Order: sequence, then C-alpha cells, then structure tokens
Amino acid sequence: MSTTYRVTGMTCGGCSKSVTAAILEAAPGAKVEVDLGNKAVSVDGASEAQVKQAVDAAGFGFEGKV
Amino acid sequence: MSTTYRVTGMTCGGCSKSVTAAILEAAPGAKVEVDLGNKAVSVDGASEAQVKQAVDAAGFGFEGKV
Repeated sequence: MSTTYRVTGMTCGGCSKSVTAAILEAAPGAKVEVDLGNKAVSVDGASEAQVKQAVDAAGFGFEGKV
Repeated sequence: MSTTYRVTGMTCGGCSKSVTAAILEAAPGAKVEVDLGNKAVSVDGASEAQVKQAVDAAGFGFEGKV
C-alpha cells in the first residue's frame, strides 16, 4: 500500500527523477510515483522516516502525509 | 581550489539545489556552484569520488571533469 506525501520544490522532470533516485537509494525496493502538479510523491515500500530523510537530503521540502 | 565537473540532467533551479544538497550531504564543508547552462558543477572541498557518488545518487549524470 502506498502512502502519499507532500514534497515542495520540485519543478521539472529532473527534480522528480532526483527525488525518486534519493528515495530508492534509501529504500532500494520501493515503488515511487511523483505527481509534480500536485507536489505529491506516493511511495510503497519505504518508511515515512526514510522518505523524509531522502527528500531532505536531496534538497526538497518534506511536508508530511497528504 | 575548485574542480569543475560535467553533470547532465539538471534543467531547473530545483535540480541545481538538489545536486548542491547531495554534494553537501557527502562533504558538509564543500563549496558548490552550479552553472545550469553549461551543465557544470564546480566543487571545492570534496573528492571526485564523493561528487560522483552524490550526483549519481541524486539521479543526475556524472560525466567527469570538464
């Protein structure tokens, strides 16, 4: 089951790729979907703490569950 | 002394912020400057291996020294 988080600062495909790569580095088996328009990232297979740490380290803004 | 590397896949300010954050996470004291138009990242205070690892993990393309 995936959880959707609000992530700010993503403005293009490079950003969404970067957020995805950072989450996958923290949780290699995760499934990640980015919705740029809604500033939303849906993740299956990673904890909220893993997602927060990865998003923060990648320079974007983690704002918790949607 | 800073070293300049070619990094592909950066297309906006979010991307350059992300690359900078990833390098700073790997080498907290580094000085990082991103030139989007030239696909160039200049780094002082981090090894090439640190920069490569950070850029790869952030989902961008590390192509070595310019």
